[in-house]
Amino acid sequence: MITRINHIGIAVNSISDVLKLYTEALGLKLKDIEIVEEQKVRTAIIPVGESKIELLESTDPEGVIAKFIEKKGEGLHHLALEVDNIEAAMANIEKQGVQLVDKKPRKGVENTSIAFLHPKGTRALIELVETGK
Amino acid sequence: MITRINHIGIAVNSISDVLKLYTEALGLKLKDIEIVEEQKVRTAIIPVGESKIELLESTDPEGVIAKFIEKKGEGLHHLALEVDNIEAAMANIEKQGVQLVDKKPRKGVENTSIAFLHPKGTRALIELVETGK
Repeated sequence: MITRINHIGIAVNSISDVLKLYTEALGLKLKDIEIVEEQKVRTAIIPVGESKIELLESTDPEGVIAKFIEKKGEGLHHLALEVDNIEAAMANIEKQGVQLVDKKPRKGVENTSIAFLHPKGTRALIELVETGK
Repeated sequence: MITRINHIGIAVNSISDVLKLYTEALGLKLKDIEIVEEQKVRTAIIPVGESKIELLESTDPEGVIAKFIEKKGEGLHHLALEVDNIEAAMANIEKQGVQLVDKKPRKGVENTSIAFLHPKGTRALIELVETGK
């Protein structure tokens, strides 16, 4: 079951170039900056209500965020939906014939379990997130 | 002040082609389908926690959603942030030198007041929304 939007990921060339817009112009607060080695990404975490904006900067020119920006430009990258049980959610999605990028959950930021759906189906890149695992 | 993510808009060619993925595979519920004549868009509203996913289908080949898809393909289109006072939020954003697409708030779906920020600054297309006006 999906419980909330966990976060929305925005691909940017440089967190430091854009962060002030989110904090000073929009009045949001930066909670943390994390590096996820596995995904070659540096993430600025900005809480909004029960959700978050994550600014995503590539730490490597071959990383997924660098490649996304090369192809589509900076902008909205993925939508993360929080689920109470990621294995159950993935099993239901597969049963409905929807393609997953990840066959098994993998580790995300802040000790989460995550899996991406293939955007061919949902049109947008959607990530499932289970927290606290 | 920003209080929550009001919704995330996803540009699609056809709501009917993709809706089942969101309802049956992801287990979300369709609340309503609305047409916003001014923006030449048909919107499927799908609540998620305190927020919503809005699937956006163009009602006109010259509409903004049709043009977005032509240029970038189907996918995440805009992020709508809810504010308690849209005029105050817009004044602060302008004061910080950030460009707005709309100089004055205009009418959105479900009796809201909305204004778009220029994506040059925030990198993603961001909409401000004040509800109940």
